[in-house]
Parts: sequence; C-alpha cells; structure tokens
Amino acid sequence: MRDEELAELGQQLRVDSVRVADAAGSGHPTSSMSAADLAAVLLARHLRYDFQDPDNPANDRLIFSKGHASPLLYALYKAVGAVDDEELLTFRRLGSRLEGHPTPRLPWVDVATGSLGQGLPVGVGMALAGKYLDQVPYRVWVLSGDSEMAEGSVWEAVEHASYEKLGNLTLIVDVNRLGQRGPTRHQHDLDAYARRLRAFGWHTVEVDGHDVEAVDKAFTEAVQVEGRPTAVIAATRKGRGVAAVEDQEGKHGKPLPDAEAAIQELGGPRFIQVDVQAPPPARAPSGRDQDRAELPRFEPGSAEATRTAYGRALAALGSARGDVVALDGEVSDSTRAAYFKKEHPDRFFECYIAEQQLVAAAVGLQARGWVPFASSFAAFLTRAHDFVRMASVSRAGINVVGSHAGVAIGEDGPSQMGLEDLAMFRAVHGSTVLYPCDANQTARLVSAMADLKGVRYLRTTRAETPVIYGPDEDFPVGGSKVLLRSDDDRATIVAAGTTVHEALRAADVLASDGIPVRVMDLYSVKPVDVDTLNEAAGATGCLITVEDHHPEGGIGDAVAEAFSDGRPVPRLARLAVRNMPASAAPEEQLHASGIDAESIAAAVKLLVEQTVVP
Amino acid sequence: MRDEELAELGQQLRVDSVRVADAAGSGHPTSSMSAADLAAVLLARHLRYDFQDPDNPANDRLIFSKGHASPLLYALYKAVGAVDDEELLTFRRLGSRLEGHPTPRLPWVDVATGSLGQGLPVGVGMALAGKYLDQVPYRVWVLSGDSEMAEGSVWEAVEHASYEKLGNLTLIVDVNRLGQRGPTRHQHDLDAYARRLRAFGWHTVEVDGHDVEAVDKAFTEAVQVEGRPTAVIAATRKGRGVAAVEDQEGKHGKPLPDAEAAIQELGGPRFIQVDVQAPPPARAPSGRDQDRAELPRFEPGSAEATRTAYGRALAALGSARGDVVALDGEVSDSTRAAYFKKEHPDRFFECYIAEQQLVAAAVGLQARGWVPFASSFAAFLTRAHDFVRMASVSRAGINVVGSHAGVAIGEDGPSQMGLEDLAMFRAVHGSTVLYPCDANQTARLVSAMADLKGVRYLRTTRAETPVIYGPDEDFPVGGSKVLLRSDDDRATIVAAGTTVHEALRAADVLASDGIPVRVMDLYSVKPVDVDTLNEAAGATGCLITVEDHHPEGGIGDAVAEAFSDGRPVPRLARLAVRNMPASAAPEEQLHASGIDAESIAAAVKLLVEQTVVP
Repeated sequence: MRDEELAELGQQLRVDSVRVADAAGSGHPTSSMSAADLAAVLLARHLRYDFQDPDNPANDRLIFSKGHASPLLYALYKAVGAVDDEELLTFRRLGSRLEGHPTPRLPWVDVATGSLGQGLPVGVGMALAGKYLDQVPYRVWVLSGDSEMAEGSVWEAVEHASYEKLGNLTLIVDVNRLGQRGPTRHQHDLDAYARRLRAFGWHTVEVDGHDVEAVDKAFTEAVQVEGRPTAVIAATRKGRGVAAVEDQEGKHGKPLPDAEAAIQELGGPRFIQVDVQAPPPARAPSGRDQDRAELPRFEPGSAEATRTAYGRALAALGSARGDVVALDGEVSDSTRAAYFKKEHPDRFFECYIAEQQLVAAAVGLQARGWVPFASSFAAFLTRAHDFVRMASVSRAGINVVGSHAGVAIGEDGPSQMGLEDLAMFRAVHGSTVLYPCDANQTARLVSAMADLKGVRYLRTTRAETPVIYGPDEDFPVGGSKVLLRSDDDRATIVAAGTTVHEALRAADVLASDGIPVRVMDLYSVKPVDVDTLNEAAGATGCLITVEDHHPEGGIGDAVAEAFSDGRPVPRLARLAVRNMPASAAPEEQLHASGIDAESIAAAVKLLVEQTVVP
Repeated sequence: MRDEELAELGQQLRVDSVRVADAAGSGHPTSSMSAADLAAVLLARHLRYDFQDPDNPANDRLIFSKGHASPLLYALYKAVGAVDDEELLTFRRLGSRLEGHPTPRLPWVDVATGSLGQGLPVGVGMALAGKYLDQVPYRVWVLSGDSEMAEGSVWEAVEHASYEKLGNLTLIVDVNRLGQRGPTRHQHDLDAYARRLRAFGWHTVEVDGHDVEAVDKAFTEAVQVEGRPTAVIAATRKGRGVAAVEDQEGKHGKPLPDAEAAIQELGGPRFIQVDVQAPPPARAPSGRDQDRAELPRFEPGSAEATRTAYGRALAALGSARGDVVALDGEVSDSTRAAYFKKEHPDRFFECYIAEQQLVAAAVGLQARGWVPFASSFAAFLTRAHDFVRMASVSRAGINVVGSHAGVAIGEDGPSQMGLEDLAMFRAVHGSTVLYPCDANQTARLVSAMADLKGVRYLRTTRAETPVIYGPDEDFPVGGSKVLLRSDDDRATIVAAGTTVHEALRAADVLASDGIPVRVMDLYSVKPVDVDTLNEAAGATGCLITVEDHHPEGGIGDAVAEAFSDGRPVPRLARLAVRNMPASAAPEEQLHASGIDAESIAAAVKLLVEQTVVP
C-alpha cells in the first residue's frame, strides 16, 4: 500500500470509529482517533495475520491494551473484511460480538482488555511462548495508552521482557497526552517514556504518530532489532482530525458532538480493503504429547506437606504432558514448583517477585495453547486479583496454586497468611477452587485441574499433614469425601485442608463423649458437593464448617450457598479465623483462632445441645 | 558516634539478629545481617526520633519494607533502649509484640510490612503528608530489599515520588544479591537499579553498604538533596560477617546453623546504647478542625447517582473537617471525587492510573493522622487487594470507594464491572462494607464511615437512582431499612444498592398478584443487621437476596452468615450475576443476569409455592 493510501486508511479508521460510537451512543472515539495512523501502518505493512484462519500458529499477535479503543480495533476488522459494516454498527448492543471492550468472543482477540496495564504483561507471556516454547517467529504487538504507563504491572512486564530478551515483542505507546480526566503526568514528553524504557534495557523509537512514513520506519526498525524488545513511542493527538475534539480535555469516552460534521471533516467515508500479509508457513507444534501421568504415590499413615505433593505431582504431569508449563514468583523452593523446574527447566518461567506478571504470563501462555501452573504464597496472589478477574473475562484456562494458606503457617505472622484467597477465587466467574488435605489427594487434583476450563485454584499447606487416602482413590472435582459416618450422627463437621485433620481428632473426642458426628472433607470448595451436603443435612440436622480462612467467602459460604435454592436449610454454624493472628506456633495459631480439634469439639457440643433430635 | 563505633554497632545488630532467630528457631537473620551497617549508620547519625514519644509529629518515619529483616529492626529497638534483651528473645513467640514481620502492635511501627514492595508506596503517602499537609520537616526512610524492586508497586511509587518532588523521602536499597530461592535478576549490578531510578527523576547514590563512612556520606547527601527523592543503593552481602552463610544460596529465612560460633565470629556480644537525635521541635498540627458537616440534601422523588452524592458529601465533609483528604486513580470525573478536588485542591491527591499507590498513599496518610478517602472504579480496586489486606494488618483506618459497581453500568462490558468487590472487602479482617441505594443514604454513610475503624468500603452506582429516603433519615452502620412490610408477608426480598429499586418494583407486581412481600434495604453489608434479618425470617419464613455482584462473597453470603450461629435457618434463595455479562443497556443487563424486577418476582413466586405457609 502506498503512503498516501496509508493516510487514507487512517482516516477511514477514524470515520468508522466515529460512526460506531455515534450509533452506540457511547464508546471512545477520540482515543481511537489518536491511534488510527499507527494502526493503519501496522495493519497494511507489518502485521502478518490470516484473518480467515485465526488459529494459524504463525499469526502475529495483536493486543489492544487500551481496550477502550475498541472502535479502532473493530474498524480494523472491517478494513480486512473480517467484519461487515452491518455488524460494525452493532457495537455495544445486546448480543453483539463487538463489546465495549474487546473480548475473545471475537476469534481474533486472544485476551480481553479494558483494565489498563494488562496488555503488555499478557503480551510478554505470548512472546515467551513464541521465543522459548513454540519457536515460531510470530511477533507480538501491544498497543498501549500513555495513561496506563503509570500502572506498576507495566513495569513488571518491561523488566521481564528485557530480562528474557524478547526481541519478538513491540510496544506501541499512543502518547495522546490526555487521560480520562485531564493531562497525563508526562503529556507529550516522549523522552520521559523513552528514558525510562531504555533504562530497563529496551530499544526505543520516538515518532510522530500521525506521520505514516515515520511510523512505517519505526515499525521496520522494531522488527529488525534482535535480542531485546522495542517500544515505539508515538506523539499523537486525541480526537485527531476533528477540530471540535482534537487535543481537548473533556472529550474522553463519549461520542462526538456532531458525528456527521466530523465525518465530513475527516473527508467522508472510504472503502479501502486491506490485504494483510500472510504469516510465514508454520511448523506443526511439537513437544505436546500427552501420556497418562505417573503421579507420585504417598503411603497412608505417613506425613507429607500438600505443597510438596503439588510440586511432585506437577513434575510428573510435566513428564507425561508436553503442554504443561510452570511459573513461579521467586518462591519456588517454598511452593515446591522447584520440583518441576528441576525436571523441566525449559518449561519453567521464573517471574521473580512480580505476581501480576506471573498471572499475566500464564494468561499469555494459555492463549498460545499451553497449560500453565502459576504459584506463589496464597497471600501474595491477592496482588494479582485484577489479572485473575480479567483472565475470567478472557475465558482463559489457567491453574493458580497458592501455598502457605492460613494461620497454620505459624510464626511468620499475618502478612504471610492466605486468609482471603478462597473468597477471592470463589468470586471469580467460572472458577474452580480446590483445597486438598493430604498428599495423594493433592496429586490427583493437580492432574485433574489441568483439564478443566476457566480459572482453577489449588490451595496448599505449608506443614506436613497425615496421608489419609490411598494413592488410587478418586477425587472428582465437585465431589467430597465422607470420612466418618454412622446412622446416629448428631452433626456434620465440614472441613477442608488443615482442618480435616482437626475435625477427625474432634470426632474422636466427641465419640468418646457419646456424640457421634459425621466428618466431610470438602476438598472441592467450588463447585461444591450439594448432594452430599444435603444428605448430611437430612441425616444429622446441623452442619458446622471449620476453615483456616476468614469467615467471609470461604468454606462456610460455600456450604451456605449449597442451601440457597429455597429448600429447607439445616442448622449451620461456622468456625473460621475471626481474630487478627500474630506470631505463634502452628498449633497455637489454630487454637487461638478457634479452629483446632478442641474448639471444634466444644462448638459441636454447643450445637448439638441446641438441636432437637429429629 | 565515632566511625569505629558505627562498625561495632553494626556487628552488635548482627549478633542480636542471630540470637533472636536462634531463640525462635525461625526468622531471617541473613537478610538482617546484610543491612546491619546501613541500619547502624542511619540510627546513630541520621534518624531523628524520640523513642520515648513515638507520637511526636516531628519524628522521622522508618519503614522496613523488607519486613522479614525484623530481627534487625528489633535489634535497633534494643540498641536505643526501647526493648530490653528479655523481650528481644520473645521474638516470634505467642503473645510477643516482636512478630515475624513488624506490625503496629509496636508503637514505633507505623505500618505492617511483610508483603514486599509495599514500604515505598506507603512511604510516599507519609512523605506527601509531610510535604503538603503536615508541613513538618520529618524525613521518611524506607529500607527495601533488592528482590522487591521487581514489584510493579515499587515503580508506581518511584514515579509518584518523583512527580511530587518528595525530597523528604529516601529509599535505601539493600542489594544483597540473593532472593529467597537464588540470585536476583541484577545481582550486584548497582547501576541497573540506579539507571532505572534516575530515568524516573530520582537522585541516586551507589555505595558499599558495609563501608560505614561511605554510607554516612551517602545519607548526608540524601538529606541535602532537595526537590526530589534519593535512593541510596548499597552493595551488601547476605549473611555478612559469618563465613558459613555469607553470600551463599540456600541460607534464606532460617536460623544460622551454629549460632554460638557465628556470634564468636562476629566478635561476641556488645552492649552499645545509641542516643538517637531528637526531632526538631514540632509545631502543633493545624487545619484539622471538625465541625458538623452540612451534608447535601436530595429531594425524595428526584433521581441522582449515588456516586454523585458521594462526591458532594465528601466535599461537604472536607469543608467541615480539616483532617479529611481525598485521592483518586485518574477517574475523579467518574467517581465524582472531582467535587472534593474542586473545593479542597490542597487536600486532593491525584494518583493517576496506579491503584496500588492509591491505596498505599491512603495508608501512609492515615498513619500521619489524616482521614483519607480513596476512590476508583470498583473493578479496578481489585488491583490493590494486597494493599487493602495489608492495611488491615496495619490496623489502618482508610475509606475506599468503588464506583461503577455491577452489570448496571451497561455498555462498557465486564472489564469495567465491579462484580467481586463486595467479596474482596468483606473478607478483609475488621472491615466495614456499605452499599447505599439512594443519594441521601449515601451522604449519611459517607459522613459515618469517616469515624469508623479499619478498612471501610463504600460501593456506588453509575446511573441515577430514585431518591427514596429523606435527607434527615438515619442510617446506622450495622443497620438496615425495611421498606415494605405487612403481617401477611410471604417472603422477604433482601436487596442493596441498584437492586433495592428492582425489589420495590417486584413487590408491586407481587402485591397485585396477591403475594405480599417484605423488602429490606441491606445498605450495611458488613456488619449485617442480624436482628432484623432474624425478625424477617421468623415472620416470612424465607429470604431471597438479590445483588448486582457474583453469587459468591456478597449479599447472599452476608445474609447466610447471619444465620450461621446454630439457630434455625429460614429458607434461602439468592439471585446474583451468574452469567458472563457482555455489552448491553443497563436494564438489559439486569434482566440478562436475572436480577431485575421481573426476575425477582418470578423467583419469589417459585419460592413461595415451595414454602409451607407457617
């Protein structure tokens, strides 16, 4: 495409951006108009992508980190013939694939954006896959706004990309000077961005983002630079091309005041169709064979930490399956992801202490077909909450594993205790939450979670716990285990993880006091085993949950939710961590929080005394 | 103190660090030993602090961002006579103030640390207070590890500190080369850190962290530099002084193998007492008068968005109270914090798109006695989850306000919808969660929350909603409002925020179908009004919750938790957002998620048909 046509294509993208926002009555046309020339040059000259075959493994990847510029993205799709004008005008309507911010309901969108500062970290994951795993020379292009450069997650990614020498990654920063409510910190000081990025080891090119020849040259340079990522830092004007809005405050996130006049000012509609370069022929992906994993086997009666069982099971899974990869946030000796690293160093990614990048890389890797397991302390996964939330919107399949759950960690104190993690992961749409109590159960759940959809969370424990199940026992997701039962049970103790062992001890004490109780191991916290809970409710009349977690959002809530369909509800009681823990030995912590065997037994007695025997 | 004594003091701090970890059987002596000389010089020559009067407003602030170096911090407290040797050796024991990671149970600790990358962002908040509000020349010293420089939150703070010209802030980076499980990315490349920090506008000094004269000079330089923050980047050796551990991998987070030999190698115990410089005389804090706020009044029957009521109420609160400050994450036009900014620009802090820094600055400000309100979209507050969690461990009193809650925002789509925020804030220890449905209620709750303890969260709505309460109505925290009731109610609809209005419409429909229902406005989601819920349960037999939030962790769980004390439980049903929303108009969204009036009415009918009339 000739340079004059590039500029015309830019105008076409602006016109279509104005049109869709006008039709929708909302959206972000001015944020689209600033980046239109950048997008035009990328599409017509540099992107290698087969829009007829979005699954082609050699396709470049394009991430609109500034997801609010969706009008521009959809205008691109129209320019390549992937979306027709009729569909284009369904923007933001009920049922349309063209949502306010892009999601993978569109086959050309790998990941959802709209929470700023996520595109680059996810792009790093894709570039890692391209360089180190797929060994396919696709390029990853991330279009970012200038405002979002304030997000710390961007700098985690900047550091990571440089450290991993991701020459296949290009960041395009659309420096349009204006954020949502006013000027950005650095306005049009391109060097402020370039200086920072260069200090982190990036190659940088500063460019007038409306000079298509200059932009073309900048992208050419970006592609040629090897061994390090490039940032093209482009000075642009928000609302470019329409005097009523160009470079003006107060014009963010709304249709143009007079769309018809604006379209005229932009030179009217155009009907340019772009032939995008095809990707180079791709080799068939290799190294992703799948055998049945030879999971580690633990001797019942022995003791092992579930985190250790996790590490060993993950390593075994990695041996059986070439598609499994692992990532960790510089605590792999604690989470035991180190077992995987030792056996499969080529499929292990050290993310250092950057939990947002950790989860984002996992999202990027799964978008390329890999099955990632990302681990850190459960407490520190809260750092990545927004990335987990957006992973769900991205329909991403990721495994996240949090170790050192609960007060049971002991002396390190509350800053290191995961006490909100079950609440956080349960509240994610479509998630699965697993919390094993022994080593064999852990191994089986690790294997099972790899094949699920959505965000899968596994919670592990620091200390050794007794192995109570045999290595061939089955643990379906959505199931539970009844560990103790009789026809005379007066109550059901529902526990998971650490508290299963406390519950069993409590049941012993209660039995010797003439109070038989049922004990349920609720290893699948979401989905929860409604049938078995109902059966226990019917048989025993009351349920008491015990969890090493705050009272909100965890096992107590999961059990209560099982009885929220209008049917009769049993009596319920919940034991959970209601205090602010301090340092103490693990057993002291469990006692201080009222979730040890003694506390459980006392609570059951109280509950049973209140209960009219059916 | 003479230079030779400084070096001796460093050795004393090492010896005490070794001793406490040995006594405890756990802890991080090697991470303490690397920073011992830095800490000795700071304490003896530069810190201005009255340990007898930790509330002295002129005291410097010292934050151990590397909270695992708590043995060093406590050894400092011993060296100044604040803690005696007997207490020192209670480290990590049940009941001891000397926790594994520092918390404000100690009067000299402003904020808890232990989740890395938080000390600097919180320090920025304190430095903002010092420079712009308190106008007291205290200095803020942050001791950071090198590993934690990978956290994005650090770079949010680096950018913010430079932008705000915080010459009163010094970051000391203890570059001991080794993280938990191995070398850091940059090992002893001090310039890698310095280059990055300089690119962000910081003054930097590189120094041998074991050369006390050089360190002294570096701190002197840091204090002299005006108008920008300084980083002292110090090359150190982990485990310095004991050959068995010095600069070696695998020695993180455990006592030394032979403490007695190590103490000998360090030259044995010393008994140096340090006279710390007193702070300069402080002016009495000014500008913190408190009058009764003239809250905005809204006409019942009119319509207003609760976010607008928030902004107006906050501005009014700011007029009445000199201690109220506001912060926002570059969306103040949307959250309506802009109303406060307009009236009180000197007490408004723009944090740009950096939600971790937003919440951290609030924590820093409250540590200096200010009452901060930090706002962003509810969805994006998930970005700051770990900071909210640690705020709770810090016993911090902060107000956090999330706008654009739920599917009710409409066309922008799921990336912008807060659908997990209630779960996140409920699960924080000691938190308060408020969710008003009208403008007058919002104003009253904004005023009330300012005086509460702990983390207070207010959820606001984008769209206008009917004003249903009078401006003088009272809304106690922990209360609720019964909006409709009769003696014949067949069910209770429990709603909050957006769904209150849907519930009232549903009740109209049901009434005309001969099914009278009770409607409760559960504006206080935590603490929840157990008494009124119990009364409704007794009177109507079944409760149906309706919320613009995922089913987990929100209003449904809050209501279920009210019935988790072993007493009889009513029938329960919950309506919540179980789908993955897309773009659509607000009313279409409510319908698609099954939480509009029509869906509520249908669900109540189903529930009532199942219920045996009492």
